[in-house]
Amino acid sequence: MIDEFTQSGKQIYADLQEAVKTKKKCFAILFDPEEINHFGSSSRGIKKKQLLTSGQASEHLNLDYRVTEALLVDQLQKLPKYTTHLFVGGSTATQTQTQLTVQILKKNTDLPILLFPGDYKQITKEADGILFLSLLSGENPEYLIRQQIKSVQQLQHADLEIIPTGYILIDGGRETTVQRVSHTQALPQDDIEYIVNIALAGEYSGKKLIYLEAGSGALKTVSTEIIQAVKSVISIPLIVGGGIRTQIKLQQIYEAGADLVVVGTAFEKGEF
Amino acid sequence: MIDEFTQSGKQIYADLQEAVKTKKKCFAILFDPEEINHFGSSSRGIKKKQLLTSGQASEHLNLDYRVTEALLVDQLQKLPKYTTHLFVGGSTATQTQTQLTVQILKKNTDLPILLFPGDYKQITKEADGILFLSLLSGENPEYLIRQQIKSVQQLQHADLEIIPTGYILIDGGRETTVQRVSHTQALPQDDIEYIVNIALAGEYSGKKLIYLEAGSGALKTVSTEIIQAVKSVISIPLIVGGGIRTQIKLQQIYEAGADLVVVGTAFEKGEF
Repeated sequence: MIDEFTQSGKQIYADLQEAVKTKKKCFAILFDPEEINHFGSSSRGIKKKQLLTSGQASEHLNLDYRVTEALLVDQLQKLPKYTTHLFVGGSTATQTQTQLTVQILKKNTDLPILLFPGDYKQITKEADGILFLSLLSGENPEYLIRQQIKSVQQLQHADLEIIPTGYILIDGGRETTVQRVSHTQALPQDDIEYIVNIALAGEYSGKKLIYLEAGSGALKTVSTEIIQAVKSVISIPLIVGGGIRTQIKLQQIYEAGADLVVVGTAFEKGEF
Repeated sequence: MIDEFTQSGKQIYADLQEAVKTKKKCFAILFDPEEINHFGSSSRGIKKKQLLTSGQASEHLNLDYRVTEALLVDQLQKLPKYTTHLFVGGSTATQTQTQLTVQILKKNTDLPILLFPGDYKQITKEADGILFLSLLSGENPEYLIRQQIKSVQQLQHADLEIIPTGYILIDGGRETTVQRVSHTQALPQDDIEYIVNIALAGEYSGKKLIYLEAGSGALKTVSTEIIQAVKSVISIPLIVGGGIRTQIKLQQIYEAGADLVVVGTAFEKGEF
């Protein structure tokens, strides 16, 4: 069978499959371009204002390349050693913010950079690949087909490895930005059978990844019961993210069956 | 890269890709179980009533195996020699009708039998594979995600080759059953750019086939301009169906870029 990725030298998904096969766990840090580009919003030790001289302060502060680069380089130095992927995206980040973040990361690391876009406007060709999301847990056509159609023009002119991803929101104990932006509800954690069925429907309809998401800064992570149940039926790699703050939790989630775990907020806050 | 189909000995999609690669055209006859199982609705020479003795007439007429088999065997004998696939499905067929049709076809032909279901209830494990449809041209969540979720239980217990298919309804000059059942509109033929974008969005989101459908008994087929435009950008096989009544039209559609053409109504009516 023809494999469009390896044919064109694209390897992120093939490498991920190899990792799953050899039982190596993957770990991604999620960078939210909006957080990084807003004055002082990073709390990883260096605040933008500490880097600014009066001459640097300008009304174009958000786009100041040097300031953002200093922040990102600082964060890259603090990456856990087991980090295998960088995700870039957020529910409300702009294209300029995303592009700047990706450009700087690309210049300063060899880790694969995957877009994890909250909106088609965040697509930027400087990344290595894109998690092409379908929000399967919701029933909003905007995130099942319209955003995907709107993405086409930018993707056609980019050379991104496109990885179809079934994205499933699970209740993490508080309303998340994704829910608010997508006008969909997260699924209750106790409806495991329904969550499993959605994941399988995703695989059957062509997704190459399933992503269980409790939401940025979730109060509780996706339960190990859900992860086990989904992992036991799907044959594609499983991503889990949202609310993961400790090494113990990380290990539990890996042991339950996650192939790739995503940490965002806890890293921003210096907890990882 | 792992290929789930060839691993489990499933070959329909791999064979289709091989055909595309070697520029062999494929041809499918679509059997609508509802048409076949309804008294006298077939007009391929043999009417059910001609086959019935008074003893056979019963209130379970629709399910009479021998009558349906006689009809289907008759139709199989009339298949064009270049037929490569049989599709079974319809907008309103029942599971029993579908199962009976598939069982009889399976017994009487070696051609691969693919379900083309209008509803998850039509899934029957006796077929070789299933076009697992997402109705990308509509914005009805029922046909973008709900039907897919409802299908999971039956698919899990079957051994069907599941082929994710992006299904796109194009205006064929009259309202079709699919439109009526799915509560979606067909796309106007002149909006080629939008149709192309939907097809690409389908490929990017994991579909392995794109199916351009003018509808059963369409007054006009999908235009060669649309077929050319779609074929020029997608890298997965392209299916075209609806309203194809003549060899000349069939050749035009192949030349425009269709890899597999589906004929239903015109075959039922003896025109193919």
